[in-house]
Order: sequence, then C-alpha cells, then structure tokens
Amino acid sequence: MRLLIINGPNLNMLGIREAEVYGNISYEELSKFIYEFANLNGVEVKIFHSNIEGEIINEIHNSFGKFDGIIINPGAYTHYSYAIHDAIKSVNIPTIEVHLSNIYSREEYRRKSVIAPSCVGQITGLGKYSYILAIAYFTKGE
Amino acid sequence: MRLLIINGPNLNMLGIREAEVYGNISYEELSKFIYEFANLNGVEVKIFHSNIEGEIINEIHNSFGKFDGIIINPGAYTHYSYAIHDAIKSVNIPTIEVHLSNIYSREEYRRKSVIAPSCVGQITGLGKYSYILAIAYFTKGE
Amino acid sequence: MRLLIINGPNLNMLGIREAEVYGNISYEELSKFIYEFANLNGVEVKIFHSNIEGEIINEIHNSFGKFDGIIINPGAYTHYSYAIHDAIKSVNIPTIEVHLSNIYSREEYRRKSVIAPSCVGQITGLGKYSYILAIAYFTKGE
Amino acid sequence: MRLLIINGPNLNMLGIREAEVYGNISYEELSKFIYEFANLNGVEVKIFHSNIEGEIINEIHNSFGKFDGIIINPGAYTHYSYAIHDAIKSVNIPTIEVHLSNIYSREEYRRKSVIAPSCVGQITGLGKYSYILAIAYFTKGE
Amino acid sequence: MRLLIINGPNLNMLGIREAEVYGNISYEELSKFIYEFANLNGVEVKIFHSNIEGEIINEIHNSFGKFDGIIINPGAYTHYSYAIHDAIKSVNIPTIEVHLSNIYSREEYRRKSVIAPSCVGQITGLGKYSYILAIAYFTKGE
Amino acid sequence: MRLLIINGPNLNMLGIREAEVYGNISYEELSKFIYEFANLNGVEVKIFHSNIEGEIINEIHNSFGKFDGIIINPGAYTHYSYAIHDAIKSVNIPTIEVHLSNIYSREEYRRKSVIAPSCVGQITGLGKYSYILAIAYFTKGE
Amino acid sequence: MRLLIINGPNLNMLGIREAEVYGNISYEELSKFIYEFANLNGVEVKIFHSNIEGEIINEIHNSFGKFDGIIINPGAYTHYSYAIHDAIKSVNIPTIEVHLSNIYSREEYRRKSVIAPSCVGQITGLGKYSYILAIAYFTKGE
Amino acid sequence: MRLLIINGPNLNMLGIREAEVYGNISYEELSKFIYEFANLNGVEVKIFHSNIEGEIINEIHNSFGKFDGIIINPGAYTHYSYAIHDAIKSVNIPTIEVHLSNIYSREEYRRKSVIAPSCVGQITGLGKYSYILAIAYFTKGE
Amino acid sequence: MRLLIINGPNLNMLGIREAEVYGNISYEELSKFIYEFANLNGVEVKIFHSNIEGEIINEIHNSFGKFDGIIINPGAYTHYSYAIHDAIKSVNIPTIEVHLSNIYSREEYRRKSVIAPSCVGQITGLGKYSYILAIAYFTKGE
Amino acid sequence: MRLLIINGPNLNMLGIREAEVYGNISYEELSKFIYEFANLNGVEVKIFHSNIEGEIINEIHNSFGKFDGIIINPGAYTHYSYAIHDAIKSVNIPTIEVHLSNIYSREEYRRKSVIAPSCVGQITGLGKYSYILAIAYFTKGE
Amino acid sequence: MRLLIINGPNLNMLGIREAEVYGNISYEELSKFIYEFANLNGVEVKIFHSNIEGEIINEIHNSFGKFDGIIINPGAYTHYSYAIHDAIKSVNIPTIEVHLSNIYSREEYRRKSVIAPSCVGQITGLGKYSYILAIAYFTKGE
Amino acid sequence: MRLLIINGPNLNMLGIREAEVYGNISYEELSKFIYEFANLNGVEVKIFHSNIEGEIINEIHNSFGKFDGIIINPGAYTHYSYAIHDAIKSVNIPTIEVHLSNIYSREEYRRKSVIAPSCVGQITGLGKYSYILAIAYFTKGE
Repeated sequence: MRLLIINGPNLNMLGIREAEVYGNISYEELSKFIYEFANLNGVEVKIFHSNIEGEIINEIHNSFGKFDGIIINPGAYTHYSYAIHDAIKSVNIPTIEVHLSNIYSREEYRRKSVIAPSCVGQITGLGKYSYILAIAYFTKGE
Repeated sequence: MRLLIINGPNLNMLGIREAEVYGNISYEELSKFIYEFANLNGVEVKIFHSNIEGEIINEIHNSFGKFDGIIINPGAYTHYSYAIHDAIKSVNIPTIEVHLSNIYSREEYRRKSVIAPSCVGQITGLGKYSYILAIAYFTKGE
Repeated sequence: MRLLIINGPNLNMLGIREAEVYGNISYEELSKFIYEFANLNGVEVKIFHSNIEGEIINEIHNSFGKFDGIIINPGAYTHYSYAIHDAIKSVNIPTIEVHLSNIYSREEYRRKSVIAPSCVGQITGLGKYSYILAIAYFTKGE
Repeated sequence: MRLLIINGPNLNMLGIREAEVYGNISYEELSKFIYEFANLNGVEVKIFHSNIEGEIINEIHNSFGKFDGIIINPGAYTHYSYAIHDAIKSVNIPTIEVHLSNIYSREEYRRKSVIAPSCVGQITGLGKYSYILAIAYFTKGE
Repeated sequence: MRLLIINGPNLNMLGIREAEVYGNISYEELSKFIYEFANLNGVEVKIFHSNIEGEIINEIHNSFGKFDGIIINPGAYTHYSYAIHDAIKSVNIPTIEVHLSNIYSREEYRRKSVIAPSCVGQITGLGKYSYILAIAYFTKGE
Repeated sequence: MRLLIINGPNLNMLGIREAEVYGNISYEELSKFIYEFANLNGVEVKIFHSNIEGEIINEIHNSFGKFDGIIINPGAYTHYSYAIHDAIKSVNIPTIEVHLSNIYSREEYRRKSVIAPSCVGQITGLGKYSYILAIAYFTKGE
Repeated sequence: MRLLIINGPNLNMLGIREAEVYGNISYEELSKFIYEFANLNGVEVKIFHSNIEGEIINEIHNSFGKFDGIIINPGAYTHYSYAIHDAIKSVNIPTIEVHLSNIYSREEYRRKSVIAPSCVGQITGLGKYSYILAIAYFTKGE
Repeated sequence: MRLLIINGPNLNMLGIREAEVYGNISYEELSKFIYEFANLNGVEVKIFHSNIEGEIINEIHNSFGKFDGIIINPGAYTHYSYAIHDAIKSVNIPTIEVHLSNIYSREEYRRKSVIAPSCVGQITGLGKYSYILAIAYFTKGE
Repeated sequence: MRLLIINGPNLNMLGIREAEVYGNISYEELSKFIYEFANLNGVEVKIFHSNIEGEIINEIHNSFGKFDGIIINPGAYTHYSYAIHDAIKSVNIPTIEVHLSNIYSREEYRRKSVIAPSCVGQITGLGKYSYILAIAYFTKGE
Repeated sequence: MRLLIINGPNLNMLGIREAEVYGNISYEELSKFIYEFANLNGVEVKIFHSNIEGEIINEIHNSFGKFDGIIINPGAYTHYSYAIHDAIKSVNIPTIEVHLSNIYSREEYRRKSVIAPSCVGQITGLGKYSYILAIAYFTKGE
Repeated sequence: MRLLIINGPNLNMLGIREAEVYGNISYEELSKFIYEFANLNGVEVKIFHSNIEGEIINEIHNSFGKFDGIIINPGAYTHYSYAIHDAIKSVNIPTIEVHLSNIYSREEYRRKSVIAPSCVGQITGLGKYSYILAIAYFTKGE
Repeated sequence: MRLLIINGPNLNMLGIREAEVYGNISYEELSKFIYEFANLNGVEVKIFHSNIEGEIINEIHNSFGKFDGIIINPGAYTHYSYAIHDAIKSVNIPTIEVHLSNIYSREEYRRKSVIAPSCVGQITGLGKYSYILAIAYFTKGE
C-alpha cells in the first residue's frame, strides 16, 4: 500500500499560522506524526508540499501508476482550483480530501470545495487525525 | 467512552434503497458492523434511528450528560434542519457528522449541510467506514 | 390494484382552512369522494394523513411491497422535505404528486416542489379531481 | 363540450425525437389516441400544432367563444413565453397545461413554467395520459 | 413625418382582455384614436399588429428608409425578445417603447424591458395617451 | 381570554443551551414567569412544548375554537416550516410570533421568518418579556 | 389645473453636469421651458428642487389638497428612496415619474426605479420633453 | 426613566396615508395615546418626527447622555438606512425598533430591516400598541 | 456532403446593422462567400434565413434525413430559444453554432447560449470565417 | 491648492462611537490633526461635516470652481448614496474616498462602495492617515 | 506566420484522462497532428504546455513581438484565471481560445470562460480540429 | 524599517500593457521611483515580482521575521486568490494592498478583492503614488 499525501498552500506555516484555527502543531510535527502512524500500519507514504497550484497538479500526474491512493489537503485551493479537480480525475486514483479545521463553520467562501466532487470522500475538522483516519480508510483491508 | 450514533430519515431502508448510491449493505448489517468494531475497541455505543426530525432532537437532548460523543448521519435533514443544528449546540457534546455517500458529488442541494457548523467535523463518502473512522476519532486516546 | 393515498400537513383542516384557496369541501367529504371513485373502479385505496413529516416517511416505508402506487399531497412539505423525496426513492413505487390548488399561481415559495423529481408525474390545481385523475392513471390498463 | 388541444414546438417530431425522454409514440399515434378517447366520451376536440409562438397565440385568440376549454402542451415555450401566458389570460377560457415528461426531474431550466400561472392546473409526466386526464377533467360532469 | 406604430402580442384582444388592467377600449377604438390624433397633427402613421415575434422584426426591417420614427408596444415580448431589441438597433430609427399599463407596478417579470436599451425612451402607464404622447414627441418641431 | 403559548424545538433546553445567546433562565422558570403574569392579568394560558414540527401543527389545529390567541416561539422552525405557517392560517386565530433573542442580529439564515406572514405581528429580542408583552397585547382591552 | 414639478438631487447642476448624458440645457433654461409650455396650456405649475430626500417628502406632503398632479424626477433617489415612494402613496395624488435620460440604457443600478410602482406612469429618455409630455397628459381634457 | 420616541418618514401622514395598511388613527392621536400611557407609568417621553434621514441621525446623537432608551419607527428608512443603524450603534443606548404594520407580510423589500441589528429587539404589526409595549419593556422594573 | 446553414434574426440586415460590431459585409456578400467556399470544397450547401423562431424550427425539422450537418447562427435567439435547442436535439444531426462577433466580450446577456448544449461545438468571433471553418470541420475527411 | 474635506454621517461621534472599530480619537482631534498637516504642507483645507445626505450634495455643488480636490468619507452613505456619486460626477473635481476602518474586513454590506466609481481612488483602513495620505496625493507636485 | 499554441493544466494527460470526454488521442499524437498541419500550411508553430498558471502567463509575455497569433486551451484555468485574461490583453496579440470538448454541454462551472473576453474568438467542442481550424483562421490570407 | 513590496501577475508588462488603463510608466521606472522615495525616507525596500501565485505565497512566507510591513499589488489574483489571503494571515505582518487603477470603476469582477480582508488597508487608483503613500503610512513615525 503506497499513499501520496499532498499538502497545499500555507500548510508549511503550521505552528506559526493562526493557532486559534489550526492549533500549535508545526508542519514537521504533523509530518512526523503521519509517518509514524503509516509505519506502524505498514503503509508507505510520501508527503509532498507545494504552494504552487501547478506543482500540485504535476505531483498528482506523477503519481499515476505509482500510488494506491491520494490524501490531499488543498488548502485555500479547495475553493477555486478546478484544475486540481481535473488532475485528480485525470489519474483516476482514489483520493480523500482532508482538512485540519471544520471548513463548514468558517467564512462562507470556505464552505464550498470545488475539489470534493473528484474525490471518494472528505474528512474535515479532526485536526491531524483527519490525515490518520484517511490512511486508516485505505488500509481497511477489503 | 460512550458514544451515541444517530441515523436519520430513510437510513432504515439501506439494502432496499437506491443500491447504486448507498451500496447493498442492509441497515442491520451496518449496525452489526458498528457494534462489533465498538466492542473490539472497548467503546459503548447506542445506535438510534428515527425518521422524525423532532425525535432526533429529543434523543440529542436525552444524551446530555450521558454520552461522550455523538456521531450523526442526518440523512436528508442535513440540508434543512436548523433545528437539529440547534439541538447539537444545546447539549454541547462533541459531534461528528457522517455520510455514507459523498454528498459533494451528488445533486446541488445535497452539497450543503446546515448541521455541519454545529459539529467538530465531518466524514463523507467512505460508506460504513465513515462511522468506523468517527468512532476511531473519539477513541484516539488523547 | 392497491393504492396508498397520503395527505400531508393541514389537509385535515379542509373545509375550515382558507376556503378561497382550497374550497368548501371537508376532509371527510374528500375522503368519501375518493373511496367511492376507487370502489367504482375496483381499486383498493388506503388514505393516510399525518401532519408529522417523519410519520409520512414511515408510511411510505411501510408501503414497500404492499402497494402498486402512491398518490401523495405533501402539503407544505412539498417545498422543503428532501426527506420525503428520499423516502419515495427508497421504496421505488410509482408515485404521483397531487395538489388541490394550482401551486404555480400562488406565493413564490410554493412554486417549487422538491418532491416532484422523485415522482412519475404531478397533477395540480384540479381540486378533488387531482386525486381522481391520479387514480385513473394507475388504472389505465396497460 | 368542445376542447382545443394545442401542441407547441417540436411535438410534431414525436417518435423521431429523443425516444428515451418522450417514448416511441409518433405524433400521429398520439393524435389518434386522443381523438378516440374524446369520441368515446362525446367530446369534440380540435388538435392544433405549430412551432411558431405567435401562431399559437393566434389560435388561442381564435378559440374565444368557440371552445369550453383548452389543453396546451407548450413544449419549450413553457419556459419563457410570457406572450402565451398573456394570450390564455386574454381569452379567459379554462386551460390545463400538460407535459408528456416530468419536467421537474429534467434540466433546471425546464423546472419552471411561466405559463402555469395563467392555467387552472397542470398535469405532467404521465405520457399520453396527461392529455387524456385533462380531457377527463373537463368532462367531469359538474 | 411618417411614423410606424407596432403593436405586439395580445394587443389585438384589447376590450376583451383583462379589462381591470388594460381598460375597456377595444383595439379598433385605440387605432381610431391614434389615427385621428395623427391626422390632426399632420403625421402619417401606419399601425401594424402581429402576435409573431419574427413578423415584428420583419416589419421593423421593412421600415428602414421609410419612416422617421417607430413607436412600439412589444406586449409580453418586452421581457425577453432580444431579437426585437437587435432589430431596432439594426435599422437605427429613433424608437419609443410604450405601454398602456404601468409595467413597474405589476408582476416582477414585467418590470424589466430588454427592448428599452435600444430605444430613445419609454412611456408607460398612461393608457392610450402613451401612444399619443409618443407621437407628440416626434412632432415637437425641432 | 384564553391564550395558547407554543414553544418549538430546543426551547426545553433553556438554561443549559448557549447561555450567551439565550440567558440563564431555565425553561421551568420561563414557564412560571409567564403563568404568574397571566394569572395576575386574569388570562388563562396553556403552555405547550414540542420538538416535533407536526405535533406543533396538531396543537395549533386543536386550538381551533378553544383559544382567543396564540403566542408562538417556533425556534429554528421559524426559518423553514411553511407547514406551521399554513397551520396558523388554517385556524385563523390571531397569532404573535415571539423570540427570546434578536434574530436579526444573528446568522444570516435566522434573519428570515417564513412564519411571520401568517401572524398579526412579531416581538423579538426582549427575552422573557417577548412573551409577556404578547400577552399584554391580547389583554389590551379593546 | 395645478401641477407640482419636483426635481431631485443634482438636477440643479444641469448644464454643468455630464453634458454627454444630460445635454447642454441649464436648470434655469429647463425651468423656463416648462413654465412657458404650462402658461400656454393654462396650467399653473410650481417647480421645486431639493437635494435633500426628506425635503422632497415634505414638499409632497405639503402638496396634499393643493395640486391636481405631481411630476417628479427623483434623480438618483429613483433607485433607493422607498421613503419617497411612500410619500407619493400617502398623498394619493396622481404622479408621473420623468427622466431626462433613458435610465434603461445606462448602468445596471439605474435600470430599476423603486418609485415607479407608486406612480401612474413613467416617461424616460425624452430630455426636456419628458416634462412637457407629462404636463400634456394631465391636461388631456378627460 | 426618559425615553426618546423617533418617527421617521411619512408617519406624520397617519390618518391620511393608506388607511387599509396603517389604520385611521391620526399622528396627533397616536402621539396623545403614547403620552398618556407614558404619564400613567411615570415615564418621561419625547416624541420626535422628521422626514429627513440626517435629522433623525442628529436627534439620535443629541439623545446621548439624555435618554435611557430609544423607540424608533424608521418608516421606509428601515430598509436602507445603514446611516441610522450606525447612529444607534454610536450612542449605545438600548433601542427598540417598532412598526405599526407587520412588515413581514407586505412587499418583499419591506421584509428586511437594516436597522434591526443595531437594536435590542423589534416589535411589529401591533398598531399603536407596538409603541406602548416598547415603553412597557423599558419600564419592566429590573 | 450536404450542409444546411441557418441564419437567425437580423442577420439579413448585415451591412446596414451596427457595422462596428458586425463589419461592413452585406448579407448577400456573406452568402456568396460561403457558397464559393463550399463549391470549391465540393460541399452542397443550402443557406436559409428567417427572423421567425418557429420557421427556423420548421427548417431544422425539414432537414431530417436530408443533410449531413447543420451550421446555425441563431442571432439573438441564441440567448433564450430553448425551442430551437430542442429542435436540434429532435433531428439528431451534428450541428455547429457560429457567431460573427465574439459574444463573450459583449453585453452580459449575450454571453450565454441556451442552444450550445445541443450542438457538437461552437465557433465565435471569427467573422465570416466562423462559417467557413464550420464547413471545413464537416469536410475534414474522417 | 485648496481641498475640501467632507465627513458624512456619524463621523462627528468619533471618540464616543464604537472605539474598537474607529479608535479613541475624537472628531475635534481628527480635525486638528488634518489642519496641522495641511498647514505644514501649504494646503488650504475646509472640513465639512453633515449627517444629511442632501447637505453633503449641496456642499459638493458649492465646491464647484472653488476647490482643487475633494476628500470624502461618506460614512454609511458609502453603501447606497448614488446621489452623492452623481454629485461628485456633476462637479468633475478629482475626489478621493477615504475610510478610517478597513471596510473590506467588516460586514458584507460595508464591502461595497457605490461612490468609489466616481472617484480617482480610495484609501481605506489607515485611520487618520487615510486623510493625510489623500492630502499628500493632491500635493504630490506634478 | 508564427503561432504560439499554449496548452494549460491536465492537457498533458490526454489519452489517460477521462477518454469518454476527451477521446483516446494522446498528447503526443495531438502535438504531432498540429505540427503536420502547420508544416503543410507553411506556418511555424511552437507548442507550449504547463500546469502552472504563472508559467503560462510568462510564456504569453515572452511571445510579445515574436508571434503573430496565439491559440490557447487554458484547461480548467478557463473558468477563473483572470490573470491569464490580463496577460493576453497585455501583449495585444490576436488570440483564439480553443477547447477539445463542448464546454457548454458540461458542468455549469465549465460554461463560463473568464478568458474569452480577451480573445478574438473561441472554438469549442471540435476535438483536435479546434486547434486546426484556429490555425486555418490565422492563415486565411487577408 | 524594512518593507517588502510584492507585484503580482502582469505588472512586469507595465509600459506595454493597456496604457489607457495603467499609464505609460514602465515597470523599471516604477521600481526606480519606489526605490528613490524609500531611500529618501530611510526605508529599506525589496521589490519582488512573480506571475506565479505560489511563488508570491513563498515570498510572503520568507518575509516572516524579516520585514516590518508588506505592500502588495496582487494584480488579477486580487479577485480569486484565497491562498494569498491566507499567506498574509499566516505571517501576521501588517500589509497594505495597492492598485494602480481604481478597481472600483472597472469590470464588475475587479470590484471585489478577496485579499483585502487580510490587510490593514487598501489604496487604489492613485497610480505609482499608491505605492508611495503606502510606504509613507509605514513610516508615519508612531
């Protein structure tokens, strides 16, 4: 089981960025937490980050034939990047959209994901566990 | 750890209801699957179903002081029951909204949850695992 | 031929309720008129009324395997009950939506039915004959 | 009892036109079916067809003082012809709008009739029986 | 001074049509009233009526080089006929839109004219005088 | 003077529910306060509560011929229950809508009452006094 | 025949103000033109100007019982002054709204008059003749 | 207890203005009625009227430090005067918005108050009692 | 290869009509240009023009079984003629929508084609070459 | 260099008004601060305040030919006073709109200025420096 | 004649990406097809691809003074990249927007191009021929 | 005092790009003008340009702890880049949004900035002085 985890814009600023929304965990701590859980469950994960929309698309394309699933936190691109939506559709790999915060209790514009329709499902609001549960889904053994 | 699982309108028809959307699992099988996972993880769960909006509200009120978390699949009430939203707010118990199908890739009106803003988070599109992962979240041991 | 006729909220107030919109016929007279037409045409009908959205859903579920068709006047639930829409879909019995008044010449919010997409068709504005014609459709003998 | 039946744009293409929506019945077969039912019920019907909005208006005007009722399937003019709406109002003859398909389960723009407010009622989705039931309504003997 | 007066759909039904909105004047009386006023003022008028959108367009085209002004009551086409709008633009003859009733105190959809932007101005709500004042404008002697 | 006071969903949670919005008064204290004021003013009041939309409708129907006025706090049903709107219309008893909080300074969706058009008037934002002033209105002695 | 002519905000700047929209005529010339036409037709007119919404309302109130008609060019108040709308309704004197320019071929926000529904009719786009024709309407001798 | 009562545009026309909406009471009678009730309850009231938005703002500013409460009927300014909203906020005196008629059962544009969010609450539809109950609220003795 | 070319309302006015938008080419010149290109490429074309919506529909129906492709410039009907949309669907002949001007850089209402969804594709803004390229597409030899 | 500085409704309440939004500076202090800066830079400024929309318009008209620039803080009139917009256009003096607070991070209705299109530019959110920078712009020496 | 052909996000996935929408042609085959047609017609083409919005902008800037025309398929950027719109405007080179699929018969959000207003025209839905016809347009020899 | 100045897409084309909107100044001249002003005022500025949304985000992140203020002209990203909005929020450095042109008098879509809510304020329409005044604000010496 190989999973690609993609983090979009501003996620690298975790720990610095608006702690009242995103918590105190740093991006490094988040990454470590994910790797450890993956290791324990025998899953090979690659964590990729970029602030550039097109590089996220490139990474999705590159995953074609190499990964069994994608977990993507598209950051603010969630709300307008039809291009990332199309990229997920183009590789046809099962993808789960995750968010640290509950985007449905924030500003109006954050309550719509243009990427969700290209995904299997979505996990929001559960902090670092949003990632962990997505990994757990892929390893559910069916 | 005591969790209340609430299933809203038409979920009792699983197995009969539009299999191409909701799969072939019956409501009884779903319940059994949840109970077994809960047992394995030492979680006490009560599964409640009603097609009546007000009875769901009653059940949420009754949970006050008796449960550590609520997992709710509000069915079609997701899209208009501000009353259930208020009920969750009124008891102030951490709640996760779950959906079997990915509501964000279906009809336009299903893409909005009026209940989500009252919840900690939301898990959609992962079939019966939407419930399982929500339980896993509550038992994350922190 | 067994048909279930469901009347939603406030239809029990016929005869008392806004006569300039709904006419002078009482609910009992309407029911009698329907039963007589059904008897004459050899159709077995059950007329059910509830003001409670969830009880209407329960009745639809209970009709599964017992009726050949449903005729439903959802009253004001017409305009927001996605839950009743889903209930009709879940039992997969041919259903006709009927209205006594022409909902398309009344207030703006009455001009939209969220239930109609789950039905075979809709008959509006023809008073008690909306029900009679719906029965006639089911007995058309093809 | 004299009834005018008006068929709007593209209805003459029945049998050729999108069979998955409108069925296999040809326009001639539909007409014959209607005439036969009318004859059986002692109703005199005239069936008129035009693809030209203004000719439909002319026909409605000409019906003034000559017919006891109008049954109109306005085709796509349903969705924007305020002029046909006004024509029906101008002659003040009871009119029923009919549709072969259930316009409320099709494209968004088909879900609104600008003509319905000028009519007594509407019958949709019942195929050729939409016409038959409308005739039955006019002959209800009261 | 030659003026073309165009009356759109349903105006031929004046006298019969909704008297509470349009008054009791018949179409013939309106025409006579206009001709007499024109004669008195030395204006040559042609009054044209059609219920067919495209014939109104044809008439506008035919007026090119033959008339000094157009007075148009587009009836219900007011609200959606971009084609008539374009026709007026194409002949570049000064045009005044007139209405018998005050379209701004009626149904919401009547409060918007898609034709007005192609005209010099608009006169509404003044009954038969809407036409007379428009003629007076063209004969203002400047 | 007999008045029916109806409290809708989640009002039974007063005292527990979001104190920063609704204050610290419990539902029992609110009821006692209302009863005492009514007694002092020689008004007979019945206070009814239900979380179920349809039971509220039933109660309104039952009030027909038994009460001189209705005071209703529809809770979250305020914002979507056209069925309660219709119920009030059907019994034709003067009704005042009341709210503890000022719904016009809260979330956007709370700023619209679909029930208000069926009422004589509305009193909002005055806490328990919203009820008291409504009673005072009915006892104004004219 | 006594007519009150009201000019709203910025009309006093005619001649200075955007000549490409409003022409080169000064406010004094416009007033003189109106007075002369009125004199010739035996009409007593009072021309009032104010940039202050409330003073226009005061003037309308003061006209009660003193004038047979009002001609109002509300300037930019056309688009939002429901208060002027109400003032016209409150005195119940026949009123015609006039505009120098064709408000329907300008910015989107100018295409809606909130005052028009309180008036008998509207004359737009005919420059100083908009006023003259309105006077002519009131003197039509019926 | 000193209360400032502010009446906005067109309220001075009561008795003359649309009696079917506002009743037959004259502005003087309304004022007298209010003064008498205030006297009986030992409340000092000042009743202020202006048709000018800015003078209403001036009056609100002048009330700063001189009154314990404001009761305002903003007339048509209710629907667009964000400036009055800001004025109420700026003096920070508890304010109740009142209306004679039920603004929620009238034209669509009257159903929104931009001033309500700056107030403690709102009382609508209860005629002259809207004012009386607002006074009663301020004198509730807590 | 037989192609039907349909030109909608006001295209006959080319050369006269708004040259800054449509250029100086006359309708006859456009037709000649198209015929010559078609001849050179061995394509048989029929050019049809009508200002009447319903006649365009008639022509589309008549093309059934007689043409291999349709090229349609619906003029202003582009923006509201769902009836022409349906006509194209009804004959199931591959159709290309063409426009002389770039409708996407003009008025807002011109930026939406209700006919495009029934076509294979659309060519806009390329003047007379819009037609030529559409013919070229049909003759692409595959 | 002569500049007219116009302050709209409620700005006179600075120091009293919502300090968390507008700061603690009083209106007198703001005025003094502006005068001093202007003096230092050899600019003659007149500061005008009114709560009355029409008086602001009067002042703008009076500035014609007397000032080289206008700096306007329209207060809440920013969001609906098309009349002030027109006044600025009518005098054709370069105008800068200023705001103390960042109107784009406040309530939705504050995020739109109907006045901005008539101005050279806009400076928002920089407190008293919004005025100072506007003066600096006018004195930029080119 | 030198033409720059720009392909936006996900077009590199042709052949892999949703074949039911985009066909089976690979990106390499498309490129070859274009080059061959260009060679045959004596046109020098450069084909550029990037998934990164800003790199597309860079390429457009670089084309300034080097190319006679641009053909751009902006992929999903079509629907929101005002930045690419501005880039095309900034270089002022005639540009044609092309699409393989008919974007007007797909999801609602695909039916709007924010880039089209900066282009000469648009060709959609004609598969690889969309490119070919655009080249043909540039080589039309006028 | 160290300030970071960020210029977004297409600003590098100044001098070439639509001179009627942006003036004749080249990007190099703008930069020189800014550097000189900064030098004169003892401010250290870094001017950064990129057409790539993500690189702008990277630069904002890199500024963390290195700059006292940011001045950003986001170009067309102003209107949709929630990602840049979030980046500014994440570093929590006071930021001023600037525009050369008055975005509020241009196309509708340019009148909304999604970035402004993350900024201290905004300066628009003042050409190169928009930048200069922003620098002046940061050096205001308080």
